Amino acid sequence: MQSFDLVLMFLAFGTLLGMARFLGELFRHFNQPAVLGEILAGLFLGPTLLGRVWPEAHGLLFPEAGPGAIVLQAFATLAITLYLLVAGMEVDLSTLWRQGRLAIMISLSGILLPFAAGFLAAWFFPLFLGAGHQAQSLAFPLFFATALSISSLPIIAKTLMDIDLYRTDLGMVIMAAAIGNDLVGWIIFAAILGMIGQESTHGASIGEVTVLVLGTAIFMLTLGRWLINRLLGLVQTYASWSGGVISLALTLTLFSAAWTEWIGVHALFGAFLFGIALGDSSRVRKHTRVTLEQFISFFFAPFFFAGIGLHLDFWQHFDPLLTLVVVIISIFGKVVGCGLGGKLAGLPWNQAWAIGFGMNARGAMEIILALLAFEAGLIGANLFMALVVMALVTTAISGPGMQFMLGHKKNRLTFTDFLSAKTFVPKMQVNDCWEAIELLSRVAALQAGLDPLEVIEAVKSREETMSTGVAKGLALPHGRLPKLKKPIIALGICSQGVDFHSVDNTPAYLIILILNGSQDSGVQLRLLADAARIIKEVENLEEVKNITEFSELLHWLRIQRNKAGVPKLGPTNPQQA
Amino acid sequence: MQSFDLVLMFLAFGTLLGMARFLGELFRHFNQPAVLGEILAGLFLGPTLLGRVWPEAHGLLFPEAGPGAIVLQAFATLAITLYLLVAGMEVDLSTLWRQGRLAIMISLSGILLPFAAGFLAAWFFPLFLGAGHQAQSLAFPLFFATALSISSLPIIAKTLMDIDLYRTDLGMVIMAAAIGNDLVGWIIFAAILGMIGQESTHGASIGEVTVLVLGTAIFMLTLGRWLINRLLGLVQTYASWSGGVISLALTLTLFSAAWTEWIGVHALFGAFLFGIALGDSSRVRKHTRVTLEQFISFFFAPFFFAGIGLHLDFWQHFDPLLTLVVVIISIFGKVVGCGLGGKLAGLPWNQAWAIGFGMNARGAMEIILALLAFEAGLIGANLFMALVVMALVTTAISGPGMQFMLGHKKNRLTFTDFLSAKTFVPKMQVNDCWEAIELLSRVAALQAGLDPLEVIEAVKSREETMSTGVAKGLALPHGRLPKLKKPIIALGICSQGVDFHSVDNTPAYLIILILNGSQDSGVQLRLLADAARIIKEVENLEEVKNITEFSELLHWLRIQRNKAGVPKLGPTNPQQA
Repeated sequence: MQSFDLVLMFLAFGTLLGMARFLGELFRHFNQPAVLGEILAGLFLGPTLLGRVWPEAHGLLFPEAGPGAIVLQAFATLAITLYLLVAGMEVDLSTLWRQGRLAIMISLSGILLPFAAGFLAAWFFPLFLGAGHQAQSLAFPLFFATALSISSLPIIAKTLMDIDLYRTDLGMVIMAAAIGNDLVGWIIFAAILGMIGQESTHGASIGEVTVLVLGTAIFMLTLGRWLINRLLGLVQTYASWSGGVISLALTLTLFSAAWTEWIGVHALFGAFLFGIALGDSSRVRKHTRVTLEQFISFFFAPFFFAGIGLHLDFWQHFDPLLTLVVVIISIFGKVVGCGLGGKLAGLPWNQAWAIGFGMNARGAMEIILALLAFEAGLIGANLFMALVVMALVTTAISGPGMQFMLGHKKNRLTFTDFLSAKTFVPKMQVNDCWEAIELLSRVAALQAGLDPLEVIEAVKSREETMSTGVAKGLALPHGRLPKLKKPIIALGICSQGVDFHSVDNTPAYLIILILNGSQDSGVQLRLLADAARIIKEVENLEEVKNITEFSELLHWLRIQRNKAGVPKLGPTNPQQA
Repeated sequence: MQSFDLVLMFLAFGTLLGMARFLGELFRHFNQPAVLGEILAGLFLGPTLLGRVWPEAHGLLFPEAGPGAIVLQAFATLAITLYLLVAGMEVDLSTLWRQGRLAIMISLSGILLPFAAGFLAAWFFPLFLGAGHQAQSLAFPLFFATALSISSLPIIAKTLMDIDLYRTDLGMVIMAAAIGNDLVGWIIFAAILGMIGQESTHGASIGEVTVLVLGTAIFMLTLGRWLINRLLGLVQTYASWSGGVISLALTLTLFSAAWTEWIGVHALFGAFLFGIALGDSSRVRKHTRVTLEQFISFFFAPFFFAGIGLHLDFWQHFDPLLTLVVVIISIFGKVVGCGLGGKLAGLPWNQAWAIGFGMNARGAMEIILALLAFEAGLIGANLFMALVVMALVTTAISGPGMQFMLGHKKNRLTFTDFLSAKTFVPKMQVNDCWEAIELLSRVAALQAGLDPLEVIEAVKSREETMSTGVAKGLALPHGRLPKLKKPIIALGICSQGVDFHSVDNTPAYLIILILNGSQDSGVQLRLLADAARIIKEVENLEEVKNITEFSELLHWLRIQRNKAGVPKLGPTNPQQA
């Protein structure tokens, strides 16, 4: 590569990453999956938009051939492979064993019905659905059936968390079913890829490929898992801190990827299986997980997802009728399949349907699967587009669907929603809790347009009945004011600490004043409980002392929420959320 | 790329990463710079070894042309660019300002003398030194002069830490001088690259390039720094936790790299300057720094360093005479230059020479500089080899040289050196401190071949004079035994805790029994002090409860040592160490 090629490479990478992450954050901000924004970034930079309005720039940055194209393709392949490592690490097999019969039931019927629906549709209407030029009579229906059968673990976990079901029995059943579901789905898909793979490096037959894929999966989840755990022990003893494990994990990911690519299925299967085995080891510390996950999710993954749209022309390939049919079949198969499975396993109807909607989310995994099939010539661009849209639609309706079925509203009131830079008081200079209450009450009153003395009076009288110093440096003074329409919160930081008579005798560094109207007692309790969650994972709040800016405060609060909110077994991967 | 190309790509990446990190860790284990092992890995996999014994494998994995070669080259360029981001983040400009006059003095004379020596040598003997085919009359001496003038910040910091000088005034002066030194050296080098750059994308003249380089540097360190800080504030407020900052940092690194590559100097300058500006912002939290640093140091950097050796034939290009001359000139210029500067600034001779040896370390930065010059055709392969060897030699002698000059022995006795799996007692079941002492004393006596009752008696009598419960769950019982030749340490973990009457009333979870001979009182004190450092950064030791294996214990201890030992302002980058 010449210098000019390098300039273009850095520009292309920077543009792709920046655009993908910007739109990803934007979508996340509106509670949509970040991956949708990232795919959109690729569409914007591809023939759909940039290629139309400024074809020269598009041709230079994202060429169809030459060194630039090779590097982009290689990097996207590397990116998706590493991403599947992280996805694999999130799979917790023990959940599957623990939930046993119920999970297997739901998992099976959640695969069988959509599989059957997909297979029949593709068998009878291959042309309408847009089989690709490589599609043989059997491979296409099998693929389409599989594409409808898989689901997306991280999205399901995120949805369950959002509606406070994650840690319930129902939540664990859904997670376990989804894990079983995905394992089976991906293995079938790997076999299909092997089936059509004239590209298969060593020219194995269908039977051979299937055996090799199954063998690899079984090896990784048994002996491989044990070996990896041993190896990690060695590395932790002799190699440098945390870096040794990172290097080992990535080296073995690359080798696993090479192996599965060589046996004729895609590199990402090796990475995914290795990720499951690695994530299972208790020797992989949280620090290492987070380092791998964050770097890969925020650097590599956006390249892949944005890369999808780079060579696709939305206008040319979007087929509304086809898309509608695909969306309907997939929702029908999955919701009914999982719902029946849940019912058969003894759940009441509303919970059974809720599981159906939960498992219906396809997310990023569907898109990856569709892309592989598209690249292998198994499906055409129109069906690829339709599957992408289907993945996004099923993901978007998953949460609302579950809530509707369970009559379960998203009821987490977050106190952060009521914070404002105008009621943030850093560097408080107060001598006791009464002065602190007075200062914060005045600030809140000003913001709410209330009489300051009235507010002070309300909060002080509450404080006199019982101290509001919680523990670890947090105090939560509060009061009710009949005139108040919506809650007002003032937040103060006192670096020398104020004595709020808390149980553990620590002075309060963070003082959150919560004012409510008198009508809704529930809101006040929920806001107080939510604010108290901050200290769930901290030793004490001395670290807030140095926060002086509102943006810093929000950032710090987000970190705490993150710490407190991430369940032990769940995905912390914000990428697919 | 076809499937087979992808298989080869994953294999090549995996082999390169695995080999580089393995040898890197091996060298680190023997207190040598990891980068030396990584370069060696490249030599092993290149024509020097693999290419000789198995040319087919070498040709397949690391081809000289075709898609595979393009991907490797592009990836190595990306790797070094990201690595320079991390290197830049470690530069702390405020150190430079604080140390003022002394640092500037040492920095200047530490540049001038090696620069003059290098310039004269290269001016009069360009052919002997091996100027490359692109070398013009002025560019070659300028480059050689610059190559002798730079030093390696991370290595210097590591050396200073190793000999306990890092936090002293002398240490800070050396660090500050090295920062000034590097900034000037790299800017000169950038100008030289621009000078010879027929590759310069937009064909600017030498003067233009120099102005652009200086302008970029000044912009980044002033307005750019401010802008980045503002942008970080925005991202922290609105984007997802930590991932937003990572994406922003990497996106801007890519753009900065594109910019400097475009103005005709290498992409890495942009990344380095951006790194300095980014590292300066207090908004970049430790978590983000560590994520970037670890992933880049343990994934990207090894690719680059190993990649250096991939296309070099050591046997063909190693020229002992040339190497000797380069090593001598470079050591002479730097040690004398910095030494004189230190003396002129008022330091005593021994400290002045110590600074000279400290600044003499060239480390990875020299190798990067030499590679750029080699690739640009400015120097031949022989001189490149000689510079690589010079970098390694100056790095290796840096620590011993300083110690010799200061009469300052590395005196940190680490208690971990005396640990053994045979004296590790997890899951202790004891009811009080006397039982704990008895158990550990017996284990230690067995290992040392002493009479158990004698050991128990010695430790108990010490315990009776004053309790050895330290705090936070650590107890350090100890005793002297005249017959003991070298210290014996037994380490026990008691998950329910034992009362060792510590000051903070916490029960002891970690009990370290230290036995010494009677002759050396200093050793005992130092071992006790070293063991006590474990709790420096922990809240309490409850987390050790679950450690049951010796390898886990060592790993955990290493983490603690790491936490306690990393200075605030220093590089934590283990890569170059």
